[in-house]
This record gives sequence, C-alpha cells and structure tokens, in this order.
Amino acid sequence: MTNAKFIVIEGLEGAGKSTAMNAVLDALAEHGISDVVRTREPGGTVLAEKMRALVKEEHEGEELQDTTELLLMYAARVQLVENIIKPALAEGHWVLGDRHDMSSQAYQGGGRQIDKETMASLRNITLGQFKPDLTLYLDIDPKLGLERARGRGELDRIEKMDISFFERTRARYLELAAADESVLVVDASQSIDAVANSIRELLSNWFSRQIQ
Amino acid sequence: MTNAKFIVIEGLEGAGKSTAMNAVLDALAEHGISDVVRTREPGGTVLAEKMRALVKEEHEGEELQDTTELLLMYAARVQLVENIIKPALAEGHWVLGDRHDMSSQAYQGGGRQIDKETMASLRNITLGQFKPDLTLYLDIDPKLGLERARGRGELDRIEKMDISFFERTRARYLELAAADESVLVVDASQSIDAVANSIRELLSNWFSRQIQ
Repeated sequence: MTNAKFIVIEGLEGAGKSTAMNAVLDALAEHGISDVVRTREPGGTVLAEKMRALVKEEHEGEELQDTTELLLMYAARVQLVENIIKPALAEGHWVLGDRHDMSSQAYQGGGRQIDKETMASLRNITLGQFKPDLTLYLDIDPKLGLERARGRGELDRIEKMDISFFERTRARYLELAAADESVLVVDASQSIDAVANSIRELLSNWFSRQIQ
Repeated sequence: MTNAKFIVIEGLEGAGKSTAMNAVLDALAEHGISDVVRTREPGGTVLAEKMRALVKEEHEGEELQDTTELLLMYAARVQLVENIIKPALAEGHWVLGDRHDMSSQAYQGGGRQIDKETMASLRNITLGQFKPDLTLYLDIDPKLGLERARGRGELDRIEKMDISFFERTRARYLELAAADESVLVVDASQSIDAVANSIRELLSNWFSRQIQ
C-alpha cells in the first residue's frame, strides 16, 4: 500500500483544464509531491491513442455509432488504467488525469443520452470499484466554454455538436458532482488566475483532510 | 419486411470457414439467391477493419487487456451490424457472415474465461435481440484445426495461444450450439468435399423448413 493518489480534472471544452492541470501540479509540488504521472483520456498509451484517433477522426464518411464511441472510450480506459495508472499508483507515483470516467458518464450518458443502466454496466465491466481519489470538475456555461475553445482553432467531431448536447453534458456533470463527495466543483467562469487560486485552496483543504 | 436472412459460419482456426462460405454461396445460388452481402468479423467496415488491426497487431509491446479485446470486438460488431448488415437485410439482401457474436462468446467467454454475466451484458448493450437466422458451426478438434492453419503460413496473436485456450473455445462453441436450435453443427474433420456436401444438405433441409 502506498499513499499515492489519483486526481482527475474534468470539464467541458474551454473550461480551462490545461490551466487547472498546471495549478494542481503546482499545489502538489508545494506539498512535496513532484513525481507525478500525467495522463489524458481518451488516450495515454500506444493503443489507447490509436483508439482516440478512431473516435476523433473521420473514416471515409462512415457513421460512428454512439455505442461504438462508448465502447472505444472504455477500451482505451481499460488500457490506460491497467497498463499505466494502477502500476504507477502501486509504485507510489501520484497520477493526474486530464479526464477519466466522469467524462464518459457526462458526454455519452448525459450528452448522447445513453441509458444509465448501460453506462453503469460498462463501468462495472471495465473498472469495477476503481475510481479517482479526487476529481476537480471545472464548471462552465457551454456557451462561454465553446467560445473560448473556438478561439483556440479548429473544432473536432465532438466540439461540433449542438449546444443542447453540451447543456445535457453539463447537467450530468453537476448531477454526478452533487452525488459524490470525492468530486469538487470549481467555478471555471472566473479568470484563469482566480481558477488557479480556487484550485490551490481546494487542494490545500483536501490535503489537510487526508490521513498522511 | 423482407425474407432476407443472415447466415453465419463459425468455427476454430483451420475448420475450413472459407470452403464453407463458398458451399453456402453455391447452395443459396441453387435456391435462386445470388445477391449475397458477405461480411467478416472483426471487420467489414472502414472503422471495424481499423479495430481488427488494433486487435491483431502488436503495439510496441503494450499488453492488450482481455477486456479491451472484448470491447474492440463488440465496437467493430456494432459498426458492422448497424452500418452494413441491418441496412442490407432491410433492402432484401441476404447476408453471409464469416464469424459473428458466437465467436466472441466462444473465444473471449470460453477461451479467455471472461464471465458469462459480462458477456451477456455486452451482448445486450450492443446487439439487443439481433441474431443470425442460421449459424453453421464447423466443429473440429483444435489440434487438427491448428495443424491445418499452420500449413497456411504465419500465425497471428490469437493463433499463437496455448492449445487449452482452443479446447475451452471449442467446448463453449458446442455448449452454445446445443442450446440454440438456429445453430447447426458440421463435422469439419471430414474432407473438404464432404464438408461442402454436408453444408449443402443442411441448407437444403433448412430451406424446406422456412416459410417462403
């Protein structure tokens, strides 16, 4: 047993996940934790990145079925969890993830409206009881988030979805956050500096609650 | 509603599936059905073939988890069923498949010993009530089948498994065949000509039982 933890950043496009990742790394460093394994989902292993490409890219006009997208997300997650995250934690390395299972619950479950029974069943098949120790959910109105994301350049397949898709996704994020005390909500409509400060403060409080 | 049917050929490596496919096509042609859509699994669409490659190839030494393999098989199957098989049947085309869901049940469920609850749950999520109208299972002792397959050249990742893997796979195939009257068992240890004759005879009987 080690004390290493798995922390995840979640949120809609344009919520500021990259900034948040850096704020968490800074806060961890202040607590003497500098050897942090960073992951991103979908992706993070050779095979999982190939699955990410299957989801993100066009394939000669072939329709990607919602269920296929969901299975690929979980297939990539299994590779990442079993081959990278669990071994890292077992060796005492903290892990910081850019997205994890909550993204599937929110985007595929909420956004694409795949039923909760299917979502729970797939989660159970692939992850069992495994879950992050702490999730920081960056909450933002999708209109503002997408505006920010568009400023960064070309939009991918998912970012081209209708605004109602992102509203359903956000609603599911908030519902999940309210039901799980390991998820902390950050107001991501604030300035970058204010978000970074909020994260440092939340993490500081979280650290003080951990049995070291 | 059309009268078009979905027929599948199943069996271990070296059971003679290609020969059987041709025998079925011949038998269908004798019954006036010549416009047959042929599929293979995993694969059969642009995206599904990319997933097939993910399963078959090596990826810089990364371990492919059993659950990942299973999810990729089902992801590929969803693409094939929704984008090819169901539309073809709806348009009145008969479909002849080189492998389908019974392969996952036998190889991943039997061979890799993934629990039946997981198998049933994934099947339900991805296929619901959809299933072939007729499956011809070519039964062969794996020792004989693998000997034949080795004669064809290089073995892939799955064909390199231990003989006990194929024995478990065969046992599950036989168990499933016994429980499902839409599955007919063909003795594939016979000569190629004898197998082809058996198939023609089985299909002829099957046709006579169909309400045309």
